[in-house]
Amino acid sequence: MQARGIHHVGIAVADLDEAVETYRRLFGAELEGRGTIPGQRVEAASLVLGESRVELVAPLDGDSTVARFLARRGPGMHHVAYRVDDVQVALDSLAGEGARLIDNEPHEGLFGLQVAFLHPDSVHGVLAEVVSSD
Amino acid sequence: MQARGIHHVGIAVADLDEAVETYRRLFGAELEGRGTIPGQRVEAASLVLGESRVELVAPLDGDSTVARFLARRGPGMHHVAYRVDDVQVALDSLAGEGARLIDNEPHEGLFGLQVAFLHPDSVHGVLAEVVSSD
Repeated sequence: MQARGIHHVGIAVADLDEAVETYRRLFGAELEGRGTIPGQRVEAASLVLGESRVELVAPLDGDSTVARFLARRGPGMHHVAYRVDDVQVALDSLAGEGARLIDNEPHEGLFGLQVAFLHPDSVHGVLAEVVSSD
Repeated sequence: MQARGIHHVGIAVADLDEAVETYRRLFGAELEGRGTIPGQRVEAASLVLGESRVELVAPLDGDSTVARFLARRGPGMHHVAYRVDDVQVALDSLAGEGARLIDNEPHEGLFGLQVAFLHPDSVHGVLAEVVSSD
């Protein structure tokens, strides 16, 4: 599989407003948009930095996997998302390489993008996401 | 301060050869180069993915902060590096914003690039690096 680049770095935060302000103030990041990802029980903010993005994610409630992440490890780096042409084709290729998938098919991420996650066990401890996006 | 983008995502790994092969095989990442960063007691490999990079870092010995990171948290996401025009100007600006710096002045990173680190306490738990690079 050929990823076309890093779509975003996902960062788990407790307070989304405060984190957005920090990334604006320290790095000059520009808010691309905010939204909820109901399937993951998170609210997310996408911040643009040149050709890259930082995605800040905060839990909507205690049932969110991000809430459990924060409780266990505190705020910090959460996932790396790779840009691909087609999420299902990427998943089939990754499964063929023996990678352990969290999602066997694409689902809807922020802004309606098609996304899917790979298990950290297959990527040296890093939760990896594939995203279909220009 | 205006960062010009994400220069790389830094990932701590135990076995550099194995991790390079994983990123090649799963994501089609291309090895840009390998080298040691004596000041950090690590060996690193830079992998290119489109306009972005993944930097895999493995400890050279038990005195490395990356060795302590691996012992405490296991392999995984380690830092985010932001591209800036001038590291010293960026550090002065970040200090002016009240950010806690690990490095008060630039030092030499991979491939001789000028780099400096910010403390995770100032960036919602994320170890952040600024890198002067085209």
